[in-house]
Amino acid sequence: MKLYTYFRSSAAYRVRIALNLKGIGYESVPVHLVKNGGEQRQQAYRAVNPSALVPSLQDGDLTLTQSLAIIEYLDETHPDVPLLPADAAGRARVRAISQMIACDIHPIDNLRVLRYLVQKLGVSEDDKNEWYRHWVREGFAGLEAHLARDKETGRYCHGETPTMADCVLVPQVFNAQRLDVDMSPYPTIARIHGACMELNAFQDAHPSKQPDAE
Amino acid sequence: MKLYTYFRSSAAYRVRIALNLKGIGYESVPVHLVKNGGEQRQQAYRAVNPSALVPSLQDGDLTLTQSLAIIEYLDETHPDVPLLPADAAGRARVRAISQMIACDIHPIDNLRVLRYLVQKLGVSEDDKNEWYRHWVREGFAGLEAHLARDKETGRYCHGETPTMADCVLVPQVFNAQRLDVDMSPYPTIARIHGACMELNAFQDAHPSKQPDAE
Repeated sequence: MKLYTYFRSSAAYRVRIALNLKGIGYESVPVHLVKNGGEQRQQAYRAVNPSALVPSLQDGDLTLTQSLAIIEYLDETHPDVPLLPADAAGRARVRAISQMIACDIHPIDNLRVLRYLVQKLGVSEDDKNEWYRHWVREGFAGLEAHLARDKETGRYCHGETPTMADCVLVPQVFNAQRLDVDMSPYPTIARIHGACMELNAFQDAHPSKQPDAE
Repeated sequence: MKLYTYFRSSAAYRVRIALNLKGIGYESVPVHLVKNGGEQRQQAYRAVNPSALVPSLQDGDLTLTQSLAIIEYLDETHPDVPLLPADAAGRARVRAISQMIACDIHPIDNLRVLRYLVQKLGVSEDDKNEWYRHWVREGFAGLEAHLARDKETGRYCHGETPTMADCVLVPQVFNAQRLDVDMSPYPTIARIHGACMELNAFQDAHPSKQPDAE
């Protein structure tokens, strides 16, 4: 398999964790989101993914896009080390937790959105960073309440083994920490993040460990 | 089943279409996103969904959140009229198309984000509307290219029957039209939207047909 990735992309980071948890070897193809006006916007990468976003995953002739769709595909085609629970209610919960981050936090704080704020709307660096933290706080407050009240929450987001939800949570916490978000109102999120980071699969997927890290 | 909904929420609209396609009866519980400072932010609704977003779906004792997770749950528990293909590659494609909209367009143009632009950052009405259209155009350009190049695209986003991807596409086109986005660069999206809107399941889920429509 070939993963089009950028070391600091949190969507790519999610897929790297899933690949590592499943023990699937892959080739990294770095796509630099900043250099050369963004390599993801150039024709060579658009031929892979016309949406001009990372990650994409090539598995033989098949090109897959969208991190959560990729993780579910990996889970269906490599069912050892499952990343989704066996029951419909559990799967719905893991998908919902994943989407609380992948739909409700990350897209609003994505690089291209922050650039639009600064370049098109003239937003200051301080206001841009406050925007970033605002959407993390909004999303984490809801997620913390969900995790804290549900008896299904265990050592990880759902039970005692990592799921897709943890693959999504860890990169978002990494981003929150980079932007100095105070994590003290989110003790359950912080605890789960800590449990994940004890595992090699999560450590090895970290941005600083990637071949294209700067 | 009980659906917490708002007539104009496109995430709720997606779930209404899925329920209708499957012929599942449900009770609508309106949550007004504008009145009273937003009923979704009040304690009564936060007890249902601490993320303070619609939709939520109650099925017996189970409360489900996040529109795509809800649709997959409905598909697993009511497998007649499937909304996801039978093969892993097809499912990955339908999920990816759904996420191209649900992750990469809709969250950035959501009501709470537009409000932040105006109320916190002092963005003008014109610039706010251009922001809206910009993210629709970015997302639709990629989606159009995906749909136009893939042989799996049929009368609908994936083949000859509606899938989850169509449940997500139609509300986004509705929003694009409300904001006067020129649809001529997206002929495949427009064609599929037209095919969907011939079906009762899509017509009956339309915002103007809801009990809380204004």
